[in-house]
Amino acid sequence: MAIHAYAAGAAKAQLEPFSYEPGPLGRHEVEIAVTHCGICHSDMSMLNNEWGMSKYPLVPGHEVVGTVAALGADVTGLAVGQRVGLGWQCGSCAQCEYCRTARQHLCDGEQDTIVQHHGGFGDSVRATADFVVPIPDALPSAEAAPLLCAGNTVFTPMLRHHVDGNTRAAVVGIGGLGHIALQFLAKAGCEVTAISSTHAKDEEARSLGAGSFIATRGTGELKKAAGRFDYIISTVSAALPWEDYIAALRPQGTLVIVGVPDAAVQLGAFGLIAKEKTVAGGRAGSPWDIARMLDFAARHQVKAQIEKYPMASVNEAMARLASGQARYRVVLER
Amino acid sequence: MAIHAYAAGAAKAQLEPFSYEPGPLGRHEVEIAVTHCGICHSDMSMLNNEWGMSKYPLVPGHEVVGTVAALGADVTGLAVGQRVGLGWQCGSCAQCEYCRTARQHLCDGEQDTIVQHHGGFGDSVRATADFVVPIPDALPSAEAAPLLCAGNTVFTPMLRHHVDGNTRAAVVGIGGLGHIALQFLAKAGCEVTAISSTHAKDEEARSLGAGSFIATRGTGELKKAAGRFDYIISTVSAALPWEDYIAALRPQGTLVIVGVPDAAVQLGAFGLIAKEKTVAGGRAGSPWDIARMLDFAARHQVKAQIEKYPMASVNEAMARLASGQARYRVVLER
Repeated sequence: MAIHAYAAGAAKAQLEPFSYEPGPLGRHEVEIAVTHCGICHSDMSMLNNEWGMSKYPLVPGHEVVGTVAALGADVTGLAVGQRVGLGWQCGSCAQCEYCRTARQHLCDGEQDTIVQHHGGFGDSVRATADFVVPIPDALPSAEAAPLLCAGNTVFTPMLRHHVDGNTRAAVVGIGGLGHIALQFLAKAGCEVTAISSTHAKDEEARSLGAGSFIATRGTGELKKAAGRFDYIISTVSAALPWEDYIAALRPQGTLVIVGVPDAAVQLGAFGLIAKEKTVAGGRAGSPWDIARMLDFAARHQVKAQIEKYPMASVNEAMARLASGQARYRVVLER
Repeated sequence: MAIHAYAAGAAKAQLEPFSYEPGPLGRHEVEIAVTHCGICHSDMSMLNNEWGMSKYPLVPGHEVVGTVAALGADVTGLAVGQRVGLGWQCGSCAQCEYCRTARQHLCDGEQDTIVQHHGGFGDSVRATADFVVPIPDALPSAEAAPLLCAGNTVFTPMLRHHVDGNTRAAVVGIGGLGHIALQFLAKAGCEVTAISSTHAKDEEARSLGAGSFIATRGTGELKKAAGRFDYIISTVSAALPWEDYIAALRPQGTLVIVGVPDAAVQLGAFGLIAKEKTVAGGRAGSPWDIARMLDFAARHQVKAQIEKYPMASVNEAMARLASGQARYRVVLER
């Protein structure tokens, strides 16, 4: 049966109704009836072919929540009608070291939901069963959708770097990723500081769990924070004063970069060496990382703050995201 | 009683005999009768005031092996006549979070052996007892001396980053630090690769434990090593093609920088993000890190390869180090 979706026919084109025949369901595949799909900045990047790997027609959407519509013959552990989610990755080789050790996001044969694969802007989307994750009952679908990519992107580094209640943490950039990171860190018992260019989001950041706030533009507040944080997660795509952020780390502290800056990161090695500091790349993790993140979010009622649009208004929703004004994630609802 | 040492009266001056009165021995201090002292590149940097923090007369020497000559009234656990070593650090505040958690090398009140303190180029040197470490019987003094700084500098990052027998490791720069790093990694059961500009040290690196060798200058060998190492330790002070080294890491791999490059480290963030890679600063660790390193070295007969000079020929020895021809550490003997 045809899947009815929204696709762009070329880079930077508007999304238009697009139907495709997905063919027979693979033995390990799941078809999800989409009820909600968050919009991520990377949907826009792919739509605009910013990374040079887009193929058209391109169906965006990789923050999917829906219900299982059909199961491949060999799929176990999922049931038709069950509420599930799908994030950035929808398949992998299943054979390599990383797939066999629950680190499928590191597989060289990674299949991504919107890269040469039709994503979640539609009535249905397909994925390999391993990448289809049950949504805990305590999480509402619309607010859960952005957790599948944005939430996973900021939660996985917490797992990787053993963030716990003794961690003095800072979040750089209070937007789609940052507003979720603040919640996760606060609920994990960290001392949390929000870092933004101005104090405009000060009050809101505190309501999300920040105990303090640093505005960087022309204030000198960042330099005053030297030696203050065990863990800094940068969610922004701007080039940052990296030396100041390294200086803001405590001894043996870690700066995790999850936003891709447009220029090279420049660091003085001595700033890393003297107090054994670290800079790490962070990204959305494995299906099991997603499962742990959703469990944590359900227990602590971590939700994305969203603006909802009907899926038929997808172009309006994309424009809203592009405006930078959305607080904080845009979610399509069918 | 006066201590007879060798000091430089000004930056870049020759070392000359210099006597000083150390005053009464502090209650927590130890006086070491120096038998051997390694020469480290940082002795030369301090002598030349490259870091702008040198005071003259300056007595270099922070790879000391000797015997306990005298103990302060409150020192326990050491005996007069016992063979001991002293490295880069000779004191700390003893009160802060780092001192109280056996991470004295991160103390802001760190007292260094040759920074506003007279070092080991002499008949005696003093240090706080916490920083005076027994030398295991199995290690000869001359070969042990360079372990106190060079050995500690390459061993501590192995502890910090949990290097073990499953680690595919590479050492960049086969010199004073690198030739010890190769041995430590090989004896820890790692798969070890030596990386140098040419193949000149190929055979020697293999004799020290390297299973393979990469020459970087004009060969393309480094680019071919993409995705090969879990752990790379860079011991050189040259600016490196950082992107190639990040690419040479396996997923979740770590590049540790212990040599201070003269230019900023430039990295594309995407290279770190895609496979969760890390860049970390590494340095000589705490007294307990030194003790573990010496125990490991004794059990595995890890020794610095050295060239010995009588302490009276200290200027000749310094010139030999400066020539870059020493294989691989220069040690003064009294």
